[in-house]
Amino acid sequence: MVKNCFSVIIAGGKGTRFWPLSRAQRPKQLLKILSRKSLIDETVERVYALGGRKNTLVVTVADQVNALSKELRALPKMNFLAEPQGKNTAPCIGLAALEVLRRNPDAVMVVLPADHWVADVATFRRTLKVAADLAIAQDQLVTIGIRPDYPETGYGYIMKAQALGEKNHGVFRVKRFTEKPTLTVARRLMRQGSLWNSGIFVWKAATLLELLNRYQPAIGSILNVIATAAKGRSLANPNPQLRAVMAREYKKLPSLSIDYAVLEKAGSEGRVLTLEADFGWSDVGSWAAVHRMMRKDTHGNAGNGRWVQLGSKNCLIHAPDRLVVLLGINDAVVVDTPDALLVGDLKRSQEVRDLVDELQRQGLGSFTVK
Amino acid sequence: MVKNCFSVIIAGGKGTRFWPLSRAQRPKQLLKILSRKSLIDETVERVYALGGRKNTLVVTVADQVNALSKELRALPKMNFLAEPQGKNTAPCIGLAALEVLRRNPDAVMVVLPADHWVADVATFRRTLKVAADLAIAQDQLVTIGIRPDYPETGYGYIMKAQALGEKNHGVFRVKRFTEKPTLTVARRLMRQGSLWNSGIFVWKAATLLELLNRYQPAIGSILNVIATAAKGRSLANPNPQLRAVMAREYKKLPSLSIDYAVLEKAGSEGRVLTLEADFGWSDVGSWAAVHRMMRKDTHGNAGNGRWVQLGSKNCLIHAPDRLVVLLGINDAVVVDTPDALLVGDLKRSQEVRDLVDELQRQGLGSFTVK
Repeated sequence: MVKNCFSVIIAGGKGTRFWPLSRAQRPKQLLKILSRKSLIDETVERVYALGGRKNTLVVTVADQVNALSKELRALPKMNFLAEPQGKNTAPCIGLAALEVLRRNPDAVMVVLPADHWVADVATFRRTLKVAADLAIAQDQLVTIGIRPDYPETGYGYIMKAQALGEKNHGVFRVKRFTEKPTLTVARRLMRQGSLWNSGIFVWKAATLLELLNRYQPAIGSILNVIATAAKGRSLANPNPQLRAVMAREYKKLPSLSIDYAVLEKAGSEGRVLTLEADFGWSDVGSWAAVHRMMRKDTHGNAGNGRWVQLGSKNCLIHAPDRLVVLLGINDAVVVDTPDALLVGDLKRSQEVRDLVDELQRQGLGSFTVK
Repeated sequence: MVKNCFSVIIAGGKGTRFWPLSRAQRPKQLLKILSRKSLIDETVERVYALGGRKNTLVVTVADQVNALSKELRALPKMNFLAEPQGKNTAPCIGLAALEVLRRNPDAVMVVLPADHWVADVATFRRTLKVAADLAIAQDQLVTIGIRPDYPETGYGYIMKAQALGEKNHGVFRVKRFTEKPTLTVARRLMRQGSLWNSGIFVWKAATLLELLNRYQPAIGSILNVIATAAKGRSLANPNPQLRAVMAREYKKLPSLSIDYAVLEKAGSEGRVLTLEADFGWSDVGSWAAVHRMMRKDTHGNAGNGRWVQLGSKNCLIHAPDRLVVLLGINDAVVVDTPDALLVGDLKRSQEVRDLVDELQRQGLGSFTVK
């Protein structure tokens, strides 16, 4: 346990790329694709060790609170923070910082997406404890940078500047953030020792709010209105008046990512550190990513459910309720649900998002919102 | 209508290559893969015009009679002839010939498999009437030969000898039957004007029995025992004694095809004619054959049910109860049933048979016999 440490799990994503398994009422973080537990359940259990159950908060949009609290029964109702609507990560993290600060003025927050995968949980926890101590000691924004396994083009990268020194092994100032690169650029970034931006951040709540106010005064002032209206009351348990203020104020908020709103700007002022980590990580961004993480049979096939193959290699099968038989099919993804079935080229699984758009266009939106 | 004409529909096949749609209790002839009607229903309706409903007989194995009579409600119970067990086509056609002869000593029989496809029904009927007249006039065994569209290696071929003459346009003596050839041989056969052996035969019942007795005395004598035991009673309505005799005698019968047992031998004695026909025909032998016959969308995809595709061509989809979405998948077959799903390379659809063997080996026989 780390003193004054809070874990803030951001659970706002839809996971369109996991259609047909993901639907509006069954977003990615609730999917059981890598184990018998949902991604958010795995995430919550990974971070209990940091601040304890009491200090583990989940931030989500209002219409997902019920589904999430049903999924995470061990977590008290007071640990769920509901945004009136999704406005990307900057407002979401700002709101969480308000609540964390209210609970503990010395709080350090570990911010994590709900839907990532980690191979080595012990190293993950050790890394985050180091990051929390670092954020307290240095009063900086700390990002967790992952040593890349391969030149992934779907991730953001962190370019390192000088190392902090011997006492802080693996800690660097951040030179620059780079969004999803081309393959050529990704290869160069990898050669230069750049790190994957994991989207896991550690900082003091007070520091984050201070910088948010400085770089994004529009967001800062709206958060101040909400804090004033709360009158010391928990944002996790708003009364009708507070709820009305939050709904009204949220409408005015710009949709900005924390990376754009704060980190890039703070980085150029030398306020961002990165802690180089290697605990086996993925953002579970597509069916291809799932296949990469899962244990394969001798033919490179992996999945949930029962399958039989003849001359079929490197396939991902998700079909818990049906026997799947593959004949001469390679590099495919097969996802079976009660009303819809996906059969796709695993290498094109990023395009599942476009398929969902296509379904909407063809008047088959009921298959995406069910 | 043709005087004294009977249609004998042979409905014994299992259709393993149509797994997972076909199962032991749902054999190929009962499948609705090409239209809203089952293959046998289409077959029966195609031949009513020859001898009328009364003269349309279905021969099948005992345990399929109920399912078939449920499917063909318009056909009287007396029109179903049950073999105690399957023994290939020679005993089956011999048994049918006995019954047809009992009903009409001058009968000419049109023998057809239950599970074929015909594009041009009017030409089909005209062809069979010509064949029936020919069989009566010449007292020969008449086979329907199909002008090949392409060098199919899954069919048998009929090599033509001399034409019969002007009054019998398109009629040839048969030089030889060739079983499933290699692609090279199939190409040569096609160049030489050989015809596909459709498995549709026309002959007088008395003539067929005479030749069966001559070429296969073992089968002939067993059929004689059955005929004697029937004492003029219909084989479609056996009393317990007759049923017991049939069961006992059938066990002794060899499994022989009519092609091997009679046609090849009669052909070398100049007793077989072929009538060259072109009515659009297929034996519906695999999912690839089904794809070939079905109407395609602009991307070459065809099927039953609703599907959406992105970058997917030349697929066959059978999924009446579920939305199928294809992403970057070409030349595939997707067959969706309540408990099992097939995703395969359409070009390898002949191997579905091997898959069923593999399922048996893996203890998943329940998926093949259900």
